[in-house]
Amino acid sequence: MKLATYKDGSRDGQLVVVSRALTQAHYATHVANRLQQVLDDWNFLSPQVQDIYDALNAGRARHAFAFEPDRCMAPLPRAYQWADGSAYINHVELVRKARGAEVPETFYTDPLMYQGGSDDFIGPTDPIVCVSEDFGIDFEAEVAVVTGDIPMGCNAERALDGIRLVLLANDVSLRNLIPAELAKGFGFVQSKPATAFSPVAITPDELGDAWSKGRVHLSLHCTWNGRRVGMCEAGPEMTFHFGQLTAHLAKTRNVRAGSVIGSGTVSNRGVEKKGQMHWPNGYSCIAEKRAMEMLQDGQPSTEFMKYGDTIRIEMKNAAGQSLFGAIEQTVAAPGAQA
Amino acid sequence: MKLATYKDGSRDGQLVVVSRALTQAHYATHVANRLQQVLDDWNFLSPQVQDIYDALNAGRARHAFAFEPDRCMAPLPRAYQWADGSAYINHVELVRKARGAEVPETFYTDPLMYQGGSDDFIGPTDPIVCVSEDFGIDFEAEVAVVTGDIPMGCNAERALDGIRLVLLANDVSLRNLIPAELAKGFGFVQSKPATAFSPVAITPDELGDAWSKGRVHLSLHCTWNGRRVGMCEAGPEMTFHFGQLTAHLAKTRNVRAGSVIGSGTVSNRGVEKKGQMHWPNGYSCIAEKRAMEMLQDGQPSTEFMKYGDTIRIEMKNAAGQSLFGAIEQTVAAPGAQA
Repeated sequence: MKLATYKDGSRDGQLVVVSRALTQAHYATHVANRLQQVLDDWNFLSPQVQDIYDALNAGRARHAFAFEPDRCMAPLPRAYQWADGSAYINHVELVRKARGAEVPETFYTDPLMYQGGSDDFIGPTDPIVCVSEDFGIDFEAEVAVVTGDIPMGCNAERALDGIRLVLLANDVSLRNLIPAELAKGFGFVQSKPATAFSPVAITPDELGDAWSKGRVHLSLHCTWNGRRVGMCEAGPEMTFHFGQLTAHLAKTRNVRAGSVIGSGTVSNRGVEKKGQMHWPNGYSCIAEKRAMEMLQDGQPSTEFMKYGDTIRIEMKNAAGQSLFGAIEQTVAAPGAQA
Repeated sequence: MKLATYKDGSRDGQLVVVSRALTQAHYATHVANRLQQVLDDWNFLSPQVQDIYDALNAGRARHAFAFEPDRCMAPLPRAYQWADGSAYINHVELVRKARGAEVPETFYTDPLMYQGGSDDFIGPTDPIVCVSEDFGIDFEAEVAVVTGDIPMGCNAERALDGIRLVLLANDVSLRNLIPAELAKGFGFVQSKPATAFSPVAITPDELGDAWSKGRVHLSLHCTWNGRRVGMCEAGPEMTFHFGQLTAHLAKTRNVRAGSVIGSGTVSNRGVEKKGQMHWPNGYSCIAEKRAMEMLQDGQPSTEFMKYGDTIRIEMKNAAGQSLFGAIEQTVAAPGAQA
């Protein structure tokens, strides 16, 4: 099933069930008002939400209305946890190679992950509000999951069983603030502002065969200022699958229902051609593009995002249908009209 | 006023108003069932909760009952944000000096802060469940605050105005997992398990003169296995006050109501006497004690916590009354009976 949260002036919005084709929607009011409620009591409530979904897809839902993605908050407008992995080791390799740094051997066996802020997620068409263009505003296109309760110390298979929903994320990064925070060793506080999510979160069964062993085997499209810059495959090169990322997080603590776990920037390896590296699938963040330029030309030439820049992130199935709806954001100064 | 959350089998528990002397309690059912609701709508709901509090203290509350701290969850059993500062620079100096490392000059002007997990806070008398004693189990006694909405980019004074509640925290740390996570630079994921909080959270006015310029001017008592090991003054040596910590967090993003912000380990400077350093106020975490031993004897001799160890953390006012109730925890293996 596909679930979204409509803006209603409240902090948590209204849960809506969205049809498979993303054309129709229906409130789930008689079951639950908020997605977190469904996650808190999944076994009891999710079958009831599934009934609404089935009726909606069959054209039998009594009070269906047209689905409008720009009325969406993030599916979870605020969550109790946001932990973002860096599961595509190619991303780490690329960025480190560009600055002449090594990738430690442990990075191939022990996932990189940071704990992010989850009190203020933003909707798929909300502006990326940033105090200064000088911060180095970058998009980061990711796949993310929402978990049920995951017990402390469980293995990756058990953790994988606890994944309830899949969605897309734009984990906006302020690149020029990152080096100072990395040097402090305490993770990211200021260099990772509010994260945006796709209009709908979907149950893994919606992905069919594309959901396999904790990975989404489809390509992620990034369009920056109207130009397609990324079409990275999210499946084969994901070094750690979502069960492994979740088990990593749960090693020393219980992970509670509604935790959101990100894949990190989806990234594909380059190919060598006539002694030069090429990246035919493009990039899912500007930092990678700059690293590619560094490796090719000795210096980066692409600048980070400016006020007014747009970013669109979307994933389609084999039939060309949008699975999650699109994240479509514009960078804005504080106080600017969206 | 003083607020607690009683266990009721649900994830969020039941909000209770607790008398100033921590002897009586009263449900706030007709106002709000959960503390987060009050924080979400503070201006409207908090005066109504205050009325219950006033009646309770005056002996006029109709359905008061004896307050039992061991029925408490954390005041916020789960929160949308937990960001923990390291505001007592002496703690950083001590631990770094013991391992021969310098404190970067910026640490005196730019707060250290990490983003922690907030999906699974534990109650004041809940066990510290840990998979292995080999992880180096340590307590960390801290002061913490709960905020209202704090706008992006605001200054420290505005941020200070947005502090709603003060409480105590035991930010349990797994010391032997920290070096590897610090080396990765992405902050703490596995080395910081569930954080425990005091039975009650209190509004700053309950502190009287002891609440001054964003600091709590009282001493924090730590008793490990029945022995008083810490009585550090929380006020004068707090390098960054809670307004500054909150503004640091809000530099690039909105901070939403119900965010919990910690002070880091409360720590006091040593004094030199006959060429030897002494720490008359003791310590609020074992890592500090080991650093002191390192500096005095060239090696640490105190071991970290073992299964069955107890830790009690409490703060009293000038009249000797407990302000927050006590955190009283026992270290336990998974599956052990509390």
